[in-house]
Amino acid sequence: MLEDLKAEVCEANRSLVDHGLVTLTWGNVSGICPQRRYVAIKPSGVAYAQLSPHHIVIVDLDGNVVDGDLLPSSDTPTHALLYKHFEGIGGITHTHSRYATAFAQARREIPCLGTTHADHFYGPVPLTRVLQKAEVEKNYEANTGAVIVERFAALDPLEVPAVLVAGHAPFAWGRSVQESIDNAVALEAVAEMALLTLGLDATGPELEEHVLQKHHRRKHGEGAYYGQK
Amino acid sequence: MLEDLKAEVCEANRSLVDHGLVTLTWGNVSGICPQRRYVAIKPSGVAYAQLSPHHIVIVDLDGNVVDGDLLPSSDTPTHALLYKHFEGIGGITHTHSRYATAFAQARREIPCLGTTHADHFYGPVPLTRVLQKAEVEKNYEANTGAVIVERFAALDPLEVPAVLVAGHAPFAWGRSVQESIDNAVALEAVAEMALLTLGLDATGPELEEHVLQKHHRRKHGEGAYYGQK
Amino acid sequence: MLEDLKAEVCEANRSLVDHGLVTLTWGNVSGICPQRRYVAIKPSGVAYAQLSPHHIVIVDLDGNVVDGDLLPSSDTPTHALLYKHFEGIGGITHTHSRYATAFAQARREIPCLGTTHADHFYGPVPLTRVLQKAEVEKNYEANTGAVIVERFAALDPLEVPAVLVAGHAPFAWGRSVQESIDNAVALEAVAEMALLTLGLDATGPELEEHVLQKHHRRKHGEGAYYGQK
Amino acid sequence: MLEDLKAEVCEANRSLVDHGLVTLTWGNVSGICPQRRYVAIKPSGVAYAQLSPHHIVIVDLDGNVVDGDLLPSSDTPTHALLYKHFEGIGGITHTHSRYATAFAQARREIPCLGTTHADHFYGPVPLTRVLQKAEVEKNYEANTGAVIVERFAALDPLEVPAVLVAGHAPFAWGRSVQESIDNAVALEAVAEMALLTLGLDATGPELEEHVLQKHHRRKHGEGAYYGQK
Repeated sequence: MLEDLKAEVCEANRSLVDHGLVTLTWGNVSGICPQRRYVAIKPSGVAYAQLSPHHIVIVDLDGNVVDGDLLPSSDTPTHALLYKHFEGIGGITHTHSRYATAFAQARREIPCLGTTHADHFYGPVPLTRVLQKAEVEKNYEANTGAVIVERFAALDPLEVPAVLVAGHAPFAWGRSVQESIDNAVALEAVAEMALLTLGLDATGPELEEHVLQKHHRRKHGEGAYYGQK
Repeated sequence: MLEDLKAEVCEANRSLVDHGLVTLTWGNVSGICPQRRYVAIKPSGVAYAQLSPHHIVIVDLDGNVVDGDLLPSSDTPTHALLYKHFEGIGGITHTHSRYATAFAQARREIPCLGTTHADHFYGPVPLTRVLQKAEVEKNYEANTGAVIVERFAALDPLEVPAVLVAGHAPFAWGRSVQESIDNAVALEAVAEMALLTLGLDATGPELEEHVLQKHHRRKHGEGAYYGQK
Repeated sequence: MLEDLKAEVCEANRSLVDHGLVTLTWGNVSGICPQRRYVAIKPSGVAYAQLSPHHIVIVDLDGNVVDGDLLPSSDTPTHALLYKHFEGIGGITHTHSRYATAFAQARREIPCLGTTHADHFYGPVPLTRVLQKAEVEKNYEANTGAVIVERFAALDPLEVPAVLVAGHAPFAWGRSVQESIDNAVALEAVAEMALLTLGLDATGPELEEHVLQKHHRRKHGEGAYYGQK
Repeated sequence: MLEDLKAEVCEANRSLVDHGLVTLTWGNVSGICPQRRYVAIKPSGVAYAQLSPHHIVIVDLDGNVVDGDLLPSSDTPTHALLYKHFEGIGGITHTHSRYATAFAQARREIPCLGTTHADHFYGPVPLTRVLQKAEVEKNYEANTGAVIVERFAALDPLEVPAVLVAGHAPFAWGRSVQESIDNAVALEAVAEMALLTLGLDATGPELEEHVLQKHHRRKHGEGAYYGQK
């Protein structure tokens, strides 16, 4: 069932290691089928080097396992909720990458300090609120998805394809599985550069609005002219 | 004698290099046999790349060599003392990994600033006191173990499987040799993220107690639901 | 057409990965032919690992494609303008390398704090002004070149072979394609060391003028005695 | 002539890359023959990957080439002077490694903040004064050696086997070529940990004298008990 998607999601999870985004088993990638009925996701606690396509678990949008012998990632309800609410996304990448997690732990949004940021994220990378006690004790992972969706009430998830969960870590996404990986890579680079910049100038001089718009439009939307056609 | 344990401890020591936890020969891993009579440990000053299972030294819980041609790690009395007092542990990993050592040198505990920390350490990673002159001059290494045990008087070493020795470096441990390596890896990652977080917010906003408890229980104890069964 | 130059530029682009200077596709290298009529440059948005010499695009000094099936880097007009105005240069390397970009984002020049800097850059690495709205909206990439040229009104581009574009990232160049790569590598190293130095002493003690001159002259110009003859 | 020493020095220079101590060609290793008449040293400006034993240059203690087709490192007079004055040393390693160079550029000694430091350097890693204009303009490299020797007037170079040249970079040495490499590796690690520690506590709590002495004696001198016999 969904063999191509399983292979793609398996490969994407394994690539987290090459991109330096994960330590131990702290990260998981998922992808959704074109009909948006099923999600393929990493099994919980399995080492990336040992991952094969047949290990990938298929769940429905309520997080119920419909195919696979292993338990899915404990973060599965977060992924499922995001797919339900963010219609245009095809893949989600969750990591505890060092610099993005530092911003999440410091409970600071990542300000847009340069064109590298603007190329990928149209404005600051937002931060969720902290989950309340009741939200943590019951349906913790689904509620993690809920506070992300809540934070995006006035934001377009395809314009700002990542979020920092306060005290936890980042989630990134994209139109495809590969785009979610690319955005997770971009997020970590942008976070590192922002942290280094703030070390040189604590005021963090924000990128001028006209440069932000230009760079984002170079890569995204109708008038985009970056890359091949 | 204890060939399987020697092979496991050899492999664990060699893996320190892949995990980026060691420089030169600054680190050693040991494991204890199921009967808790003998400990297998790295020989002193031997390069990791040259290490074979037959180099691994077997000592008793007083640190006396009972098998092996080489001298055991100079830190052997520390390991032996920890095995005597921390009943549930099966392996110990000592390194001078950069970020954890920076906290040890700054004589600061590593505060619990996020869920990554909470997943592995139930509260701050504790710091020992500095050894006094007499403790250093006689039985230095055993006394290093003694100040660790002293620091854990009110702590469960399986809930908080690592410590910072003031002015020195970290020790991590676990139920098995591999778990001690995993905890040493987690410790270094958590230390790096804490240091980066403190650079963004010097107050170091601590993780809410209800999130700390939730994340620790997701991975540890009866109700754990992370990983496979 | 210009097969040797294409091969050289292809190899130089691929080497950006080994030098740790690029993330995703954030960087491009170009080279100019000896007659200074044609420039070979990376195609836009193509992954380094997939790059072959036949992918390299040939453009004239107005940025028009004269050979090649792919679209050239979106930064092509910046490269073309620099070749027009900086007569002695044979290659240009543009990256978003982490530390140099941090200085560009903080809108700080990289001060000359040591002999490593002096060996490659004769004085601070300069910073351009921010482009105005009209400059961004029309001919953005050519105007990026223009503010670089403007900044070098009183500087010799061969004595100071790099610049930081404010809010954006660095450009480096050299007499040859390889020299532009070497200068991009040196720039990132110098930026990292400057940032670490400023962390230890926020005043940033500048290198004495007589040491700066000596080190630069050891490597450059008539009396140079570094390297082989 | 001195084929074994050439091979050893060649291999040591190449290992600088694996140890992450060098960028471009910024570093050189030398070794002296047992009779202390001849020094084998890296040729100037040659890439490490291309280095073969027959490239290694033999000079006398005045820096004159006595064997080899290539020009020796421009830092040769510094090496020669150190061999003349520091009788027990057999090898010298000069790099521009990032963290040690940051201390040299900030003109700060590296304080002894932990046992990792004490294991290798008996007290702070010293800093030379800045060379005066006349010292730079004539015999710059020999004078670099001279200010190092001047700084060690009251220090034993075998107890503190490294120095920071103000505004420049570190030199490390040892009883053998390999020991000089090990000390350069230790120096960079110790510098990084010191910088991180100072970020956590700007006062830099120095290691207690009794721990410093204990750790140094564990590894050095008559009562040493680290390593194999």
